[in-house]
Amino acid sequence: MKIGIFGYGNLARGVEKGLAKNPDMELVGIFTRRDPAAVTSLTGAKVFPAGRVAEFAGKIDVLILCGGSATDLPEMTPALAKIFNVVDSFDTHANIPAHFERVDAAAGETGHTALISGGWDPGLFSLARLYMNIALPDGKDETFWGRGVSQGHSDAIRRIPGVRDARQYTVPIPEAVARVKAGEMPELTAREKHLRECYVVAEDGADRAQIEKTIREMPNYFADYDTTVTFITEEELRRDHAGLPHGGEVIRTGVTSDGNSHVMSFSLKLDSNPEFTGSVLLACARAVAKNNARGRCGCITLFDVAPADLSPLPPEELRKHLL
Amino acid sequence: MKIGIFGYGNLARGVEKGLAKNPDMELVGIFTRRDPAAVTSLTGAKVFPAGRVAEFAGKIDVLILCGGSATDLPEMTPALAKIFNVVDSFDTHANIPAHFERVDAAAGETGHTALISGGWDPGLFSLARLYMNIALPDGKDETFWGRGVSQGHSDAIRRIPGVRDARQYTVPIPEAVARVKAGEMPELTAREKHLRECYVVAEDGADRAQIEKTIREMPNYFADYDTTVTFITEEELRRDHAGLPHGGEVIRTGVTSDGNSHVMSFSLKLDSNPEFTGSVLLACARAVAKNNARGRCGCITLFDVAPADLSPLPPEELRKHLL
Repeated sequence: MKIGIFGYGNLARGVEKGLAKNPDMELVGIFTRRDPAAVTSLTGAKVFPAGRVAEFAGKIDVLILCGGSATDLPEMTPALAKIFNVVDSFDTHANIPAHFERVDAAAGETGHTALISGGWDPGLFSLARLYMNIALPDGKDETFWGRGVSQGHSDAIRRIPGVRDARQYTVPIPEAVARVKAGEMPELTAREKHLRECYVVAEDGADRAQIEKTIREMPNYFADYDTTVTFITEEELRRDHAGLPHGGEVIRTGVTSDGNSHVMSFSLKLDSNPEFTGSVLLACARAVAKNNARGRCGCITLFDVAPADLSPLPPEELRKHLL
Repeated sequence: MKIGIFGYGNLARGVEKGLAKNPDMELVGIFTRRDPAAVTSLTGAKVFPAGRVAEFAGKIDVLILCGGSATDLPEMTPALAKIFNVVDSFDTHANIPAHFERVDAAAGETGHTALISGGWDPGLFSLARLYMNIALPDGKDETFWGRGVSQGHSDAIRRIPGVRDARQYTVPIPEAVARVKAGEMPELTAREKHLRECYVVAEDGADRAQIEKTIREMPNYFADYDTTVTFITEEELRRDHAGLPHGGEVIRTGVTSDGNSHVMSFSLKLDSNPEFTGSVLLACARAVAKNNARGRCGCITLFDVAPADLSPLPPEELRKHLL
């Protein structure tokens, strides 16, 4: 399988590293909107300007799109699904239906297959929710995220005047997790589910009290949460907060009859969010290639993919060793 | 969807109860090898003799086979897959490939669809192993079972002379679980992973020391484990060990690059093993009906089923609410 990577940020580097663990795949090239001469790939892969990607039609089986969900992917995925089979990790949950429709039209009319919203949430967590819902139709599920770095919340802090750099950790509240796992099915507010820990490097002479107030009162991002703000030096940030760990847990509790309740849980503890997400996207690419070869065109998600299609092993090996 | 239940033991009663939580399904009837007049269903469903099942061809969309894996299903599933779409919970892992081939031949030549090895292990745990393997190709997984009642081990104790009744609990050893979750990837023996707790009701005057010795030394079942044997009265058995709880956990640890490791876990804590398993089999029946309607005949497993096919919700609802 010939893979291309479009975009070259943290996620793309995760995909690039993941190729070493998937020997049925080879990397044709990385496509960047920056000056390719200024970009050095981690593994020595060739770097091409994004504008030349169409020249690779027919030379790449699946192109993995590593843009952001806010502005990149809504344009990028439909446009590139006209030329390639593609995978993206579109994660703006509320806009998934609209994104699906646009990608489906673009891929369907050109005979390509596009898998959107791959990764872990959306992705493996979505699958966990679906399997839990079919096993326990009468129940309630909760998703906890973290402890891990939220890029969106870190960026929001960085945009505050006087802030040089920042990391925001989303932290699940143990008492809330315990109540859900005990089968209480509590109604939890945002504040009861997660804490937000902020580590901030301020500019020299910045008004720290004002920065802290701005963070704590920021609507959507922080106002609905208990938030801690800790000022640290740039050296401390580099030393103690260089990684991008993440994770979380999907829990569903439900009943099958009076008196019989059940708890299901799927959890992830990740040293590197982009490397793990990249690894999942490579498996998605494999499923896309198989589905396209079978004539299944248009937009799909992991909900539409038979699990066996994600694996390099033949079905009889899977039945023998994993069933 | 019209459902039939073949066999009427604990699992079948779990399936029957589960129908109340799946309003898109209705129960046509229960088929038993016992005298139907002596069998009263939990929900008032009609009970027919097993020998009349062929009369229901065309009147049942999917027949759920609730026989045992040792002797029932190897004959039952291929025979009934010639007449019906079927689901079974065949769980003798080593014999799955041979069972698959025989069921595939029977179902394929008559245009039926048969899903084998539904439930949670094999079943949801198998899916967890597969998804974890594709996400972390370079890693190692372990499955822990329990705390829960093992029917096979309980039966093995009951066959010992002087034993009136027994319950055997399989208990995961917390230290082993902790080591796996810490990413140590230990090589664990059977004894290091699970304890076996046995509660035994002896016949009056039976040689208890001999019963205990026979249990502890029984090859395959107990000899390789630390085993506790506790003699209790029949009243205590009824009072304290009436339920059939079970559960377990699949854990995979793996690396995506030097220094970055990840831990994935899927766990179940079940008040009633047969009710939960029955609920999963109903979702499998839904997927079987959809695949058969689409012309996909022969034998399949959950590895071949797109997750969306297990749900009663249309794909756009799944994308909107669960992705």
